[in-house]
Amino acid sequence: MSKIFQIKETILMGPGPSSVSPNVYKALSSYTVGHLDPRFIAIMDEIKEMLKKVFKTNNDFCLPVSGTGSAAMESCFVNMVSQDDRVLILQNGYFSCRMEDMCSRLGADITLLKSEWGTTIDVNQVIKHLKDNTYDVVAMVHAETSTGVRNDVEKISKCIDDNTIFIVDAVTSLGTINVDVDQWRIDAIYSCSQKGLSCPPGASPICFSQKALNKMKEREYQLPNWYLDMNEIIKYWDGKQRVYHHTAPINMMYALYQGLKDLLEEGLEDVLDRHQNVHQLLVEGLEDLGLKFIVDKQYRLPSLNAVTIPDGIDDMTVRSRLLNDYDIEIGGGLGKFSGKVWRIGLMGHSARKENIQKLLTAFKEIL
Amino acid sequence: MSKIFQIKETILMGPGPSSVSPNVYKALSSYTVGHLDPRFIAIMDEIKEMLKKVFKTNNDFCLPVSGTGSAAMESCFVNMVSQDDRVLILQNGYFSCRMEDMCSRLGADITLLKSEWGTTIDVNQVIKHLKDNTYDVVAMVHAETSTGVRNDVEKISKCIDDNTIFIVDAVTSLGTINVDVDQWRIDAIYSCSQKGLSCPPGASPICFSQKALNKMKEREYQLPNWYLDMNEIIKYWDGKQRVYHHTAPINMMYALYQGLKDLLEEGLEDVLDRHQNVHQLLVEGLEDLGLKFIVDKQYRLPSLNAVTIPDGIDDMTVRSRLLNDYDIEIGGGLGKFSGKVWRIGLMGHSARKENIQKLLTAFKEIL
Repeated sequence: MSKIFQIKETILMGPGPSSVSPNVYKALSSYTVGHLDPRFIAIMDEIKEMLKKVFKTNNDFCLPVSGTGSAAMESCFVNMVSQDDRVLILQNGYFSCRMEDMCSRLGADITLLKSEWGTTIDVNQVIKHLKDNTYDVVAMVHAETSTGVRNDVEKISKCIDDNTIFIVDAVTSLGTINVDVDQWRIDAIYSCSQKGLSCPPGASPICFSQKALNKMKEREYQLPNWYLDMNEIIKYWDGKQRVYHHTAPINMMYALYQGLKDLLEEGLEDVLDRHQNVHQLLVEGLEDLGLKFIVDKQYRLPSLNAVTIPDGIDDMTVRSRLLNDYDIEIGGGLGKFSGKVWRIGLMGHSARKENIQKLLTAFKEIL
Repeated sequence: MSKIFQIKETILMGPGPSSVSPNVYKALSSYTVGHLDPRFIAIMDEIKEMLKKVFKTNNDFCLPVSGTGSAAMESCFVNMVSQDDRVLILQNGYFSCRMEDMCSRLGADITLLKSEWGTTIDVNQVIKHLKDNTYDVVAMVHAETSTGVRNDVEKISKCIDDNTIFIVDAVTSLGTINVDVDQWRIDAIYSCSQKGLSCPPGASPICFSQKALNKMKEREYQLPNWYLDMNEIIKYWDGKQRVYHHTAPINMMYALYQGLKDLLEEGLEDVLDRHQNVHQLLVEGLEDLGLKFIVDKQYRLPSLNAVTIPDGIDDMTVRSRLLNDYDIEIGGGLGKFSGKVWRIGLMGHSARKENIQKLLTAFKEIL
């Protein structure tokens, strides 16, 4: 019999994946069943109901895409953005640049409103711009994983036209800060499993409003994407007769089921408070060490803490020591922040006091 | 603490997913690490090397797509088929119809050569057709999961032009019957994890030839698909500097690593023999029960056994009893075979004598 794969436990405090809870590991390795097994259909239904609670929505269209967060992201754009659609992207980090990339592949007519990386989206600029311009789609990132900035989805949502589809990236926000799909009138939102939901990557929640579903149903062209065509996938996830589209990642769905169940049992608001509390501890500890946050206090995410790498300190040396000597992963900078910042994630099962203490102790010894 | 998800073990003898081996379950629930962790990069490298052995190829481009088999399928088509490309699809089942669907979304100029469902592709017809016609792409399914037919990839490969990209679906063949990428000069091939490789669904191998890579590199337009753009993904899977594209489904990769490791330890040829041997047992048992195979002996897949549902027998009654009273799943018919055939899968960890005995005993009692 061949050797069984093993890997040492690491505290995942990077930009994701975050640490997986013991419960989720157990669920993940439960016996695989068929994708049309009535027991699995029941799990799918429960996942949908739990997602509605976590997204704070009455939208019935809530389901996990069979891929990682970027597949969920693409499923929103490819189903919502048609060729020549006028799309406004509010851009202040790596992931809103990815929005531009995806929309460009779809032949959209793109307008960018940029704010500096590390700052929040300038709401007044957006309000002013939307007074004079209309769009088919407006897209923004709620919690920018590359910079640790919280963008004000709530305020911006108030100036989105009734005829405009509002797409929001909640990859790093779902389960870590307040996300309110119905209050904020979000039409298409996507997240992932490996951050606030304490699961491994591989099954990624999306939620569409009725307006989004209408746009999808009225589509008169073939989507250039088969795997993420939600007009087809809905026939598997909804209704009495479940029509096979593709084989779902069964065990990843078990994991997601457990992650959602645990989150709701702890209580969504309590989970968000926990993130805020451990973030405070981290802020105090890092500031004691002289590390500087790149984001203004009022726009900092609890879930993603970006600090400037001090002068004379080598990025990779520190991160390798953390990983090899302390079994802790933190993230480096992405895009234009590469080599300049560290990104410390506090998400889901990683967002616990004991992890903050371990990281601060390690930092003290290394720096 | 919330209740941990549990599900009863089921012997999976449908068209897939197939049963997962105990080793793989253990690997699957190993500790999650980061997608840029050097230990994970090493696992990726080992997976690539093992895939080369299983695909029987020297092609360096072998990697698992971050999704289920259909994502791997689409990654082949979307990277190989450009708008207006002349594409020949050899069609004799559900999954070659899906090829047509995907190519149609990409704006290809499609020609179909059809053979009846349940029969093998008419090789002479193909040879004759390809004497008078040239194509940018020829696509076919090796092992048709909807009918249990083996198509003769080897013979057809011999009449594929040097300028033509040859795409083969090996979803149900990889690890169950001989697949020889280099001998058969296949340019793009895709499979899945949940059949011959004894893993859950969620990480799906593909392999591209140099000719395929050249076509990809010479592309002068933006792919309408971000998640499956192999020109980008290769930067994460290859080379010294691993560039983040999307977060890989870490734990699914552990599973795939273990599934491949176990398969190669048993020995690829021994594994194929095992499939053939248990298939023989199943054939004898089912024929004793008076059940009739729909495929001629010489084109039958060992991995997917399609039999006609006897007159007067209700499909769902039998399958529900198998599932509820015997913990065995078999598959119903797909597409035009719906309600008319049962599909009995013998793949990977499911392809064991004890499972045949259990199924035959159950059938005897029910029928």
